[in-house]
Amino acid sequence: METLPGVTPQEQQNTYFYIGQHETKRTVPVTTELGNQAQDAGYDMMTRPITSPGFQAKVLALVDAYFEAVSASANADAIPYPLVAPLTPEDTNLVPDEYISTMICCTSTWIDLASPDPVIAHVSRQVFNHEVAYAAFCGVNNIMIQGPDLEASSVISQYARAIWNSLEAGPYINLQILLPMQPAESKTAEDGLSLAGRARDSFKTIKSMSTDALWSWDTWELIRSTCKYHPRLTVALEVPQKLPSSEIQSRWFSEPLRTLMLPESTFARNAKGFPVLNKPVQALLTRYMRLKTVPWIILSDVGPIPGQNHPGMPVNLPDRSASPDLPTPAQSKRKQQTQTQKPKDLTPHLSYIRHLQRTQPPRPIIDRFAAGYQDFLQSPLQPLTDNLESITYEVFEKDPIKYEWYERAVAAALKDLHKKLQRPIVVAVVGAGRGPLVTRCLKASASTGIPVKQWAVEKNPNAYVLLQRRNATDPLWNKRVTVVKTDMRAWKGPVIDSSPAKVDILVSELLGSFADNELSPECLDGVQHVLHPEHGVSVPASYTAHFTPIAHPKIYADLLSRTDDQKWELPYVTMLHQYDDLCIDPKTLQPDIQTAWEFTHPLPEAIIAQSNLRRGGSVQAGGGGMVGGDGWNEHNARFCRLRFTASSRGVCHGLGGYFETVLYSPENGSKKIELSINPNTMEDKSKDMISWFPIFFPLKTPLYIPTASEIEVSMWRQTDDRKVWYEWQIEVFASLGGSRQRIAASDLHSSIKNGCLM
Amino acid sequence: METLPGVTPQEQQNTYFYIGQHETKRTVPVTTELGNQAQDAGYDMMTRPITSPGFQAKVLALVDAYFEAVSASANADAIPYPLVAPLTPEDTNLVPDEYISTMICCTSTWIDLASPDPVIAHVSRQVFNHEVAYAAFCGVNNIMIQGPDLEASSVISQYARAIWNSLEAGPYINLQILLPMQPAESKTAEDGLSLAGRARDSFKTIKSMSTDALWSWDTWELIRSTCKYHPRLTVALEVPQKLPSSEIQSRWFSEPLRTLMLPESTFARNAKGFPVLNKPVQALLTRYMRLKTVPWIILSDVGPIPGQNHPGMPVNLPDRSASPDLPTPAQSKRKQQTQTQKPKDLTPHLSYIRHLQRTQPPRPIIDRFAAGYQDFLQSPLQPLTDNLESITYEVFEKDPIKYEWYERAVAAALKDLHKKLQRPIVVAVVGAGRGPLVTRCLKASASTGIPVKQWAVEKNPNAYVLLQRRNATDPLWNKRVTVVKTDMRAWKGPVIDSSPAKVDILVSELLGSFADNELSPECLDGVQHVLHPEHGVSVPASYTAHFTPIAHPKIYADLLSRTDDQKWELPYVTMLHQYDDLCIDPKTLQPDIQTAWEFTHPLPEAIIAQSNLRRGGSVQAGGGGMVGGDGWNEHNARFCRLRFTASSRGVCHGLGGYFETVLYSPENGSKKIELSINPNTMEDKSKDMISWFPIFFPLKTPLYIPTASEIEVSMWRQTDDRKVWYEWQIEVFASLGGSRQRIAASDLHSSIKNGCLM
Repeated sequence: METLPGVTPQEQQNTYFYIGQHETKRTVPVTTELGNQAQDAGYDMMTRPITSPGFQAKVLALVDAYFEAVSASANADAIPYPLVAPLTPEDTNLVPDEYISTMICCTSTWIDLASPDPVIAHVSRQVFNHEVAYAAFCGVNNIMIQGPDLEASSVISQYARAIWNSLEAGPYINLQILLPMQPAESKTAEDGLSLAGRARDSFKTIKSMSTDALWSWDTWELIRSTCKYHPRLTVALEVPQKLPSSEIQSRWFSEPLRTLMLPESTFARNAKGFPVLNKPVQALLTRYMRLKTVPWIILSDVGPIPGQNHPGMPVNLPDRSASPDLPTPAQSKRKQQTQTQKPKDLTPHLSYIRHLQRTQPPRPIIDRFAAGYQDFLQSPLQPLTDNLESITYEVFEKDPIKYEWYERAVAAALKDLHKKLQRPIVVAVVGAGRGPLVTRCLKASASTGIPVKQWAVEKNPNAYVLLQRRNATDPLWNKRVTVVKTDMRAWKGPVIDSSPAKVDILVSELLGSFADNELSPECLDGVQHVLHPEHGVSVPASYTAHFTPIAHPKIYADLLSRTDDQKWELPYVTMLHQYDDLCIDPKTLQPDIQTAWEFTHPLPEAIIAQSNLRRGGSVQAGGGGMVGGDGWNEHNARFCRLRFTASSRGVCHGLGGYFETVLYSPENGSKKIELSINPNTMEDKSKDMISWFPIFFPLKTPLYIPTASEIEVSMWRQTDDRKVWYEWQIEVFASLGGSRQRIAASDLHSSIKNGCLM
Repeated sequence: METLPGVTPQEQQNTYFYIGQHETKRTVPVTTELGNQAQDAGYDMMTRPITSPGFQAKVLALVDAYFEAVSASANADAIPYPLVAPLTPEDTNLVPDEYISTMICCTSTWIDLASPDPVIAHVSRQVFNHEVAYAAFCGVNNIMIQGPDLEASSVISQYARAIWNSLEAGPYINLQILLPMQPAESKTAEDGLSLAGRARDSFKTIKSMSTDALWSWDTWELIRSTCKYHPRLTVALEVPQKLPSSEIQSRWFSEPLRTLMLPESTFARNAKGFPVLNKPVQALLTRYMRLKTVPWIILSDVGPIPGQNHPGMPVNLPDRSASPDLPTPAQSKRKQQTQTQKPKDLTPHLSYIRHLQRTQPPRPIIDRFAAGYQDFLQSPLQPLTDNLESITYEVFEKDPIKYEWYERAVAAALKDLHKKLQRPIVVAVVGAGRGPLVTRCLKASASTGIPVKQWAVEKNPNAYVLLQRRNATDPLWNKRVTVVKTDMRAWKGPVIDSSPAKVDILVSELLGSFADNELSPECLDGVQHVLHPEHGVSVPASYTAHFTPIAHPKIYADLLSRTDDQKWELPYVTMLHQYDDLCIDPKTLQPDIQTAWEFTHPLPEAIIAQSNLRRGGSVQAGGGGMVGGDGWNEHNARFCRLRFTASSRGVCHGLGGYFETVLYSPENGSKKIELSINPNTMEDKSKDMISWFPIFFPLKTPLYIPTASEIEVSMWRQTDDRKVWYEWQIEVFASLGGSRQRIAASDLHSSIKNGCLM
């Protein structure tokens, strides 16, 4: 990126905006020279039509001649449909020149692929196919296609099929469908130069859908579903001055936006007469330009490319370093004083967008941390079966919040226990890793002044080496820590003065993005026997899993392209990014993220006792778990059935999952110490914590969620004593004809083949 | 099958009814001896419970104890859920005896797998899993499972998951879910001996669906969908005395009915006091017993097995040859005269069903012809690319109607033409095969007295051999036929007196189940040039394709089990059998089978002319077809978008397709001569014609069709000049919240990879 004069390095690190120029009706042919002029003017790209106005006139005349022949004839069926001749050099000035791969070619806007009139549809398809085929031949990479007329009589399936067909025309062509965010309130007047205007009324009788505010999105949804979420099919979204509802803005955020189209009408004029965007549109731009795949911005009908009417003449370019709305005093003075006028800004809209680019607000911390990881699917860790690498621990240890909170929790627990026990507190960190929690326990002891006897238990033989070294060398540890290498479930407990003792505070961090998915319950149950039966405390005290239905076309398309047949049957850890929450609580305006289930520690004694009886298949206990095994882990099975209300219609691609945990709840009733990645509570409970990304449970087949319908999710945590896995199923209910009916149900998904081994 | 006395051979060829005996609560244990007695009594099978009443009491006591402990405790969570001990010999008398594989085992009916109360559900699952596991271990093949309570608060997904789990318990176990045809109007009173009765009211608050008449079927639909249409999961359908609507009867017909359960309450008593079934139930039985997989009939609570209360005593069996409702006069007299009484019929219900078995009405011809072919999927023939075998022709030639109709059509055409031309008529059969149509043309000539000059054109070099031989030896042919071996599209036409001549009547039979799917249009276009341009007649004159949305779980399950990934992307020819029409016309009460498109012959000259211009890529013509090729076959492309209204809610698995053809329309206005396999018109137009089975277009993912919704089908006939293929997509619309919305859409299916080669 070139250094722009007057721009700070910080500003320069803002995302670069690729800005293009478009004219609905170009008045000059697009040539290499025009391309140069656009580049000189500061545009990164421009659009070009494929065929000429002469071609348009030719085709319209052909259609008119056909209709005349039909009205004059006794047998309309005997007259062949109009046949559009292949392109001649007069029909197109597109050639494989130096800009061929940088310009966006536009197919003709005067056709109507969705026409209910079969002749109009037929001729439109011919024009469209000629144009796409020729553009593909020339080596064009990007084609923009006018979306279908958002009329009730449009035949979207027919339009979609034509798009599907053209995706096969060339293996490298990317297609963008140009659509408004919502249908226009009034229809633009026909100018007699379109095919749509020639459709016969007798064919317009069948009304398809009610054309409400979501109809534009709905149209896109059918097109992309028909095209099987093709990776080369994207959206060019026209942003109006008066934005649609926030639901619609959020909905488009989740779609593959290749381009944001800003027509002249979207701009307002500021007091000085410069074109500007209102605050809501600026906010939308800020939001959309933070997408991982940054959309291009195309300015439409904002004026000609400087010099385009004077080919060959150099253009006096304006000074872009100044803010377009406030000339500096120096400039004002210079304006008065100098003879040579500062050149007028011939591309004020472009200047303004560049200004916005440079003055974008900084991104939140978590965005910067997660850059590159957005929507990148990872298999959940299995730290129980696998031994983590040092670098993994190192990344975890960078979290600025988590360990702070653990320290606070241990400090509070120390205070509560010391009141009761009046002796050194026995603290054990189980799953100690490289020791950061041990450090925090020692710090809590120091800050509260309460002495502790500290244990660190770790099964990973490699991490164990580091723990021992740390104990020997770390000044805070000072050889005071007893380091034990064992799976915590096999640990017999601390020995103090040659006698077996119990642990007063059991500290662990075994949580996954869905709380229990790294088997914290199974581990802590297994080590509970070392905890003091009366006053023993677990940090964390409890944790909950949460989820909500979401739309996520990007992840769905990603999974669709993979060949592994188990891909739909397991959850993924991912920085959820380009998605839309489907169920917004109308009171709080937040996504309705509900609680699936909870685990608390330590467990009541009776439950552990029954589990132990069942271990080894005791007949008295009842043996025989329900899914195999003896059932000694059955108390850790969970089931929930939650009901959500869809805010507006959409498509559900799966569930976004999160967790929360109460590390410790102080006895004096002061605020619980909690961690959360639940978007609704994370700011409040543990702002800026980076250690966990959310989790995503996919659906193999996207479910349509109509307006005013309810989504019921059944989810199971299953166990057969050897492993743990999840199962999930989604049903959709709506009120039809006065009765509540099921209108769709997903498969029952099961991650049993990718279960977490105990 | 043994010969029964007094039964005619005809009667004996009726389908045998496998009849079993069931008691809701058996009063005696089921032993080998009881099995023998059932067999002696004439039953083919019986049911048996798995566990004993003692086991039931034990489990109920366990649950009651848990609830007491919970109410007495401060912390309900500390009390482990009740644990059902593994089965002891007292809990079950099921052993792997000689009847183990012939009896249907019933899991306990007093459990509630769908209970909203998690404790009840948990205990139910334990009982269920113990029973299924033990039965599987013993080698039981068939298990009947009580369907879920059809209450609004039942958790069907939970029930379904339990069933799914148990299907994995043993690879050979077949499970039947016992369900009523529709929910009962009133709930049977609780007897205090069930788990459902112990569910706590606080859990019954969430009402799922409105429990209307279809709710029982809907419940089955979710269960089998969750179990992925598992082949070992079937239905045991309880048939009531007062039948539900015909829609519901038809709906169950399409489901995998393993058993028809007839409880005592379904029987009425005739004047003589014998148990009989009313006429509607008899009609239902007749219909259901004609299913390819014949359901078993189980009589429930119709009385004990004779001798069961007197083990060891021989039973005097009644004479079953007599009709149960009319003792013969001889018998009446004998009754009075003889000392020894005729033994009372101890199993009158069984006798009655046997009587029904023997007196079933004969099946329609087409049923008998198609036996074995029902729902058997065949790839459509490709007679254009492939050469058919003689046996294929032979099977076709057996059709009693088709050739008759062709003869009538040719005769009518001969009369109309002879009036005009007053000379011998030139008749050509194109695609002559082994010559049956040629024979019929000659017969038409004979019967009308109108002389013909007869040609027979055939590309199949093997059939050509037979044609030549036939011409030489067949007395009717009498060497008068000119046999030409050529693809008809390459035929130059007849030569008469050394001069090229035109054909007056072009006869062909190139039709497939979907009319044009064997490429009749392409062939006839190609031979049209030999037809006289002014008065030339084609027999057939036109043909139309028709379709309607159907439910067909059987075919769907069949395709699901196949591995070929193209399986959803092609239509199948099949004798559609176990399906349900989803869209019934409320006026005619017939399925709404609509017309997709039509082809007429000969084509108007202008259309052929344009096609010829485009052949070879003529620039003037416009060349460039829309899907590749030069487009000279483009006039044979078709598109339709048809709207259907769903009669009641259901699931759509695809489209049933049919065709009709007008062979000839006499000029004097008398009735057109037509063939049809459209169920709505076939009786009227060509009754008993057997030559074509319907066609089926599958959907990869079944579409829920809610009540009062509309189904819109888009279908394309596509061509790229080298081949022809079909594409189809189904959308579902409903009115929600006052606006018409799309609520589901299928994939766009395409048979392009299995196109018919031209």
